[in-house]
Amino acid sequence: MTTILRGNIIHAPAFGALETIPRGFLVLEDGVLKGLYPVLPEKYRSCPAMDYGEALIMPSFADLHLHAPQYPMLGMGMDLPLLEWLDTYTFRTEARFADVDYARRVYRQLAWDLISSGTTRAAIFSSRHTDATLILMEELERAGVAGYVGKVNMDRNGGAAEEGTEESLSETLRWLENCRFDLVKPILTPRFTPSCTDELMAALGKLARERDLPVQSHLSENSGEVAWVGQLHPDCSRYWESYAKFGLWKDRTLMAHCVHSDAREQDAMAEAGVWAVHCAASNVNLCSGTAPVRELLDRGVRVALGSDISGGDQLAMNRVIVMSIRASKIKQIETGAPFLSVPEAYYLGSTAGHVYFGGGAGFQPGHKLHAIVADDSQMPAPARELTLAERFERTVYLMEKRHILAVYSEGVERLHSAGQPVL
Amino acid sequence: MTTILRGNIIHAPAFGALETIPRGFLVLEDGVLKGLYPVLPEKYRSCPAMDYGEALIMPSFADLHLHAPQYPMLGMGMDLPLLEWLDTYTFRTEARFADVDYARRVYRQLAWDLISSGTTRAAIFSSRHTDATLILMEELERAGVAGYVGKVNMDRNGGAAEEGTEESLSETLRWLENCRFDLVKPILTPRFTPSCTDELMAALGKLARERDLPVQSHLSENSGEVAWVGQLHPDCSRYWESYAKFGLWKDRTLMAHCVHSDAREQDAMAEAGVWAVHCAASNVNLCSGTAPVRELLDRGVRVALGSDISGGDQLAMNRVIVMSIRASKIKQIETGAPFLSVPEAYYLGSTAGHVYFGGGAGFQPGHKLHAIVADDSQMPAPARELTLAERFERTVYLMEKRHILAVYSEGVERLHSAGQPVL
Repeated sequence: MTTILRGNIIHAPAFGALETIPRGFLVLEDGVLKGLYPVLPEKYRSCPAMDYGEALIMPSFADLHLHAPQYPMLGMGMDLPLLEWLDTYTFRTEARFADVDYARRVYRQLAWDLISSGTTRAAIFSSRHTDATLILMEELERAGVAGYVGKVNMDRNGGAAEEGTEESLSETLRWLENCRFDLVKPILTPRFTPSCTDELMAALGKLARERDLPVQSHLSENSGEVAWVGQLHPDCSRYWESYAKFGLWKDRTLMAHCVHSDAREQDAMAEAGVWAVHCAASNVNLCSGTAPVRELLDRGVRVALGSDISGGDQLAMNRVIVMSIRASKIKQIETGAPFLSVPEAYYLGSTAGHVYFGGGAGFQPGHKLHAIVADDSQMPAPARELTLAERFERTVYLMEKRHILAVYSEGVERLHSAGQPVL
Repeated sequence: MTTILRGNIIHAPAFGALETIPRGFLVLEDGVLKGLYPVLPEKYRSCPAMDYGEALIMPSFADLHLHAPQYPMLGMGMDLPLLEWLDTYTFRTEARFADVDYARRVYRQLAWDLISSGTTRAAIFSSRHTDATLILMEELERAGVAGYVGKVNMDRNGGAAEEGTEESLSETLRWLENCRFDLVKPILTPRFTPSCTDELMAALGKLARERDLPVQSHLSENSGEVAWVGQLHPDCSRYWESYAKFGLWKDRTLMAHCVHSDAREQDAMAEAGVWAVHCAASNVNLCSGTAPVRELLDRGVRVALGSDISGGDQLAMNRVIVMSIRASKIKQIETGAPFLSVPEAYYLGSTAGHVYFGGGAGFQPGHKLHAIVADDSQMPAPARELTLAERFERTVYLMEKRHILAVYSEGVERLHSAGQPVL
């Protein structure tokens, strides 16, 4: 079935590039993008079309690091030091997900919040609870959020959220057996080096290799943590080696933060094909610092963005993009490294993540459509006619849910302007 | 006429303090707060009451620095260096306000945006245009935003936005003659030292003294500007002296930014009673730096917050408060100065500004009510019962317009949950 979408098309097919087609056409066949056209080819003129008028059609967002069971504590505890924050909020909140009814309620709300904010792909940490993790995957699938979800593994230093080593492994196997979803796939998720015994790490590394599973974790978020890892693994000269020695440091491994990754750690990422997930809001909220994003990119490390709720307080990825720009401006003041432009930061918060999951670079034909349609007509009355690039920038800075007319995920419309999910 | 409001009352009567009254009562007489009560006194039990249930009743916001004619460029040009931004966007946009119809349209939208975001008091820069400035004051008055507005004076280095010295003065007098508003009063507004000749500055200083008018301007925003002022006024060892020598540095003078104010400039502020207006988002957007807010406060300088649109991209003051917290965390990483807690930053973005205009410190009896009513019931389902302080923090971090049920300004309800202005 062929369908046509019309509107002001804007996308970032490459880092720093921005392409626009005023009042252009997207042609879809069964949800797969066949082409972009300034003028609709003759052969499509009888196909059903959705004309979004002057609205902007842009690739949707991809959030490559968030903690689903921390959603209930969004925007709270931000004045606490990291360890107190973990103890008072994080571990206690995560422990609540032993209750599957509570999990269902929270994860349904989260999945809907993601899709209605324009996030259609994500890499997500669940808690240690197998059943709640499967519920999370179900709810994401139901709302149309694609990507990876990981049952968290943590058999030490986890307070109320901790599990035994054997239980961690057997529950991981039970979870993997029950992962039968179209849009949402499993990713192995050792919380971070200090939460996992060597035994657990080794077993997860083996599992990753045997079943060719992707891996996500945390790396070099703050200096105290880096020092702690050094004590736990005196044989490792850098934090990353504590993952590498167990086979968890490999192509497409996602490592959140990398605030304190030095040149050697960055080179190790580039070499292995490990991705850095930059979480600017979280890194500032928790006083971790500002990540060396420009340096990572210059060294050939693949970078994407994460909301990192609830260290981050913003689920909406356009806000995360803006916060990444701000963090890069702080970094520029400190080090002179050029800040992220709007197209660059948008690329990291959209295209980069889609490409991570095998999607297209911008609106690339051959891939299922992931897009949002944004109506900026109620934004401040401009002083002159704006270019599409200006309207795009303003939309990245100012967009709230009420501006989003439609969201397409995996080629299917999941939200339309009435503000209700398409289920 | 006595009216009663009921809800979860939260306010910050002093810097760093947060007081809460669960399901308490605010008693108003003709819009003036008479008292706060955990239990309603007998004598008021027959008065008309508005019960907001579990919603939060908090003091509204005060925005002590924004450029009204830059509203049309909100969220645009953020990738440009300061001078190019001024030339491409700012001065050209401001020049459009020679058109009174355009001014009416933009200022009506802005006034409504302010009140519906919970900002009920503001100190605002207009453009140089007398008629547009009067329209701005009219529209603010109509929407219920109280405070100060200034016709901008700039007779040099202003591109398309510039005016002649004599014209600047005669138009200032014409503007002052026509300022007949209840809620909105005039404030003298030399744009900043590089925009004003000595002759103009001297005449404005004389006017400030003769008519006892308040003054607002910019101070030490970025290092290039500080150096420029040094060249223009070689007799001044600090930027502030270029205002002081013309009588513009006085009690209640508002100075935006103060990013690069050193200890001596800060002491001069404290001594004279000059207020610093901290504009965190703008300072980061324009790569100006992070202001030494903790140091200013420790030296006894009065500090309030400003959105500084459109150097700032956020009109909603809860976002400005959050950005101030983030900037202070960056500053803590750099210098060790303790970051602003949520109650502290909220005080600066709410109470401090109200007190500047003669209002009460928090919900202080004897003053007209300035309040918002926020409904947080649609925020993420919490893992346990939250304290009011936690709900307050979450509201500061997450609140969007759709969460605001009502706004009271000068004792009058200006917006209610239907989302329409009460005019």
